[in-house]
Amino acid sequence: MKKVINIGIVGFGTVGSGVVEVLSNNPSRISRKVGARVQIKKIVDKDITTPRGIKVDRSLLSTNINHILDDPEIDIVVELIGGEHEAREIILEAMKKGKHIVTANKALLAKAWDEIFEASKRYGCEVLFEASVGGGIPIIQCIRQGLASNRILSIFGIINGTCNYILSKMSSEKKDFCEVLKEAKESGFAEASPILDIEGIDTAHKLVVLGSLAFSKRISVEDVYTEGITYITKRDIVYAEEEFGYTIKLLGIAKIIDNKLELRVHPTMIPKDHLLASVSGEYNAIYIMGDLTDPLMFYGKGAGKFPATSAVTADIIYLAKKITNGVAGYIEKSYYEDIDIKPMDEFLGKYYIRFETLDQPGVLASISGILGEHNISISSVIQKERRSGDIVPIVMLTHEAKEANIRIALKKIDKLPIVKAKSLLIRVEELTK
Amino acid sequence: MKKVINIGIVGFGTVGSGVVEVLSNNPSRISRKVGARVQIKKIVDKDITTPRGIKVDRSLLSTNINHILDDPEIDIVVELIGGEHEAREIILEAMKKGKHIVTANKALLAKAWDEIFEASKRYGCEVLFEASVGGGIPIIQCIRQGLASNRILSIFGIINGTCNYILSKMSSEKKDFCEVLKEAKESGFAEASPILDIEGIDTAHKLVVLGSLAFSKRISVEDVYTEGITYITKRDIVYAEEEFGYTIKLLGIAKIIDNKLELRVHPTMIPKDHLLASVSGEYNAIYIMGDLTDPLMFYGKGAGKFPATSAVTADIIYLAKKITNGVAGYIEKSYYEDIDIKPMDEFLGKYYIRFETLDQPGVLASISGILGEHNISISSVIQKERRSGDIVPIVMLTHEAKEANIRIALKKIDKLPIVKAKSLLIRVEELTK
Repeated sequence: MKKVINIGIVGFGTVGSGVVEVLSNNPSRISRKVGARVQIKKIVDKDITTPRGIKVDRSLLSTNINHILDDPEIDIVVELIGGEHEAREIILEAMKKGKHIVTANKALLAKAWDEIFEASKRYGCEVLFEASVGGGIPIIQCIRQGLASNRILSIFGIINGTCNYILSKMSSEKKDFCEVLKEAKESGFAEASPILDIEGIDTAHKLVVLGSLAFSKRISVEDVYTEGITYITKRDIVYAEEEFGYTIKLLGIAKIIDNKLELRVHPTMIPKDHLLASVSGEYNAIYIMGDLTDPLMFYGKGAGKFPATSAVTADIIYLAKKITNGVAGYIEKSYYEDIDIKPMDEFLGKYYIRFETLDQPGVLASISGILGEHNISISSVIQKERRSGDIVPIVMLTHEAKEANIRIALKKIDKLPIVKAKSLLIRVEELTK
Repeated sequence: MKKVINIGIVGFGTVGSGVVEVLSNNPSRISRKVGARVQIKKIVDKDITTPRGIKVDRSLLSTNINHILDDPEIDIVVELIGGEHEAREIILEAMKKGKHIVTANKALLAKAWDEIFEASKRYGCEVLFEASVGGGIPIIQCIRQGLASNRILSIFGIINGTCNYILSKMSSEKKDFCEVLKEAKESGFAEASPILDIEGIDTAHKLVVLGSLAFSKRISVEDVYTEGITYITKRDIVYAEEEFGYTIKLLGIAKIIDNKLELRVHPTMIPKDHLLASVSGEYNAIYIMGDLTDPLMFYGKGAGKFPATSAVTADIIYLAKKITNGVAGYIEKSYYEDIDIKPMDEFLGKYYIRFETLDQPGVLASISGILGEHNISISSVIQKERRSGDIVPIVMLTHEAKEANIRIALKKIDKLPIVKAKSLLIRVEELTK
């Protein structure tokens, strides 16, 4: 039985320093759980001079990754540098040298899943990634173990804290996107370059990770239809809430329909009295429908130093325990379900559409005529701000319609001379299945 | 490597038949996950003649528990008979014979925890019990693994579906307890003898299980202050919501305060806009505060055939996988934190109190005088239904006060000639920590 488990940490940023802090501050509690001492052997970062707010023995620090890779005593490599290329090389190389991996890198997992898990099998090294989705929410483990006997029917995830913070604030303070984004940057809820977040890409990466596990299906980022939140206006939020009883959330959705898998990330209108609608600010929530469990929801902080640290250190403790007892490295046989991915064109759903038109007779007839030609029927229409001769919004909800039809119809409608701006479309989910 | 994992099921009732159904209907999916075939070798029940709605080979059925205990090929015994004495004997005997255990029996775990887990260590047999709390919510596993690096600060659990169904319905339909209880029995949301549920005892059992894990502390049922919901009236629910903005839930609460552990089950007023307040009907939710994660909430169906089956079969798959790979039976060293349990008398909290008094001058002065003598200060008072000479309610909220003081004060107040019924007290939790 091993007495000491040695950890090499790559990336001494926010989460890295959190992990060092937690492992250093609770050595006896952690060693009692593991049955061995969990010891940080080396911390590698490009920058080892910036103070990180915690005392660290200088001899632990290095700028040379080989000080981890070439140290045969290091059992677990914790990759926290993010990004794709360097992280990928470090993880693959570490497994070649027999080291188990803990990572928070959803972008890398989403893009190099096969490569990483093939290496994991080849070298008998485990790769754990609880921190990749949902921060402090142990959602990866729940899908893998707790729901193992369920056939997962659908996942609806609020899994990007930045977007949820922005949308919540747009809703509660009735402000526009750009204004709230600026505030979010100032208060640290959005990064300086928030493109990955606000364009839905980060959510898509996380959906690939969740979907791959939940549906036993190899999913690539390209399989996920992805829209961000930049086009959402204060006006749409108000219409959604006041006229139709919906809240707008950026959801990552993975759902089995007619034995095909839908994978999509887009702003979504959900009933405002649904539990998921009350998840606001930087919080995340994953709403899962299992065939046995019916709906489950997992809620918590999806990002931030200590929630992410919680997930990384939970993985470290779990792995360290297995290593101590000589049972690490058993890699589950991967198997894939025979299920196709549904192209977005075939998606069937309800839509909110806002048209910007001249306020003159016959406008609604023209629009609804084109919709009708494409089998799109309207469940309600609102035309409120009437100012004769001016441009006014027409807002409608449709019954279930096919995405391909909606797109063709909108293209035609947008070419009408009475239509003065590109129509805006938001999908609606009733969250009933 | 084992090719077949043999299961013995004790108890062929609702959950037992669910487990048989799930294991029989998905053999290839489960065997791919496990890496071996998971086979039901024997099902024991006192009654093997009642149809259970699933086809079972008659040769699998037996009324003789020794057909499981004495079969050396059976790897896992699934105990689903509930109750304490017989279940305890079966579990202990099965471990003596080297069999791992899956159980849903919270009453037994709460009372015989030490005995069961000592046997588990002695014989190297694992005891899994995901189904004991929260039905389909994988809360046991989350506390054990996902939150392993956290110091848990508090747990607030809606963990009895019957009580939550009754309280939700009393609130939404403005009905009294007895009426709703009757309806709940008729619609299957309450058992014919619902004492364990409505008196809070089932919640206390579950709190013992959660608390023992979360706080690494041996807790006995007697350590948990327990009140049920039978004294809650429609009137209190209306006052709570309309006057003070609270919803009443039966909570199981385990909380570290001043390095002591509070353990209590009682109807609790919580802010009605809190996420936990929107958990209604038969749903359960466990709201946990970790030092790293901050609040987490786990939500789902806490009872019912298939949610419970989900948890039991997840445990079976998890164990079967370990057995297949020869790594089952590693039992975590148990260690106990040095933490005392806080006696209820020392509890410090806010209270809602309803007095039934004669409507005459000086009543409020007498009551508030006695409260003041015991260091209880009032944050708001409502005296609404004034009918001169009649008995009317006085409803108040206190600032933080000590439970012991509240009790002495209420005893004195209840003896006043102007007070015409026993005062009613409901504790308030703001859920901020």
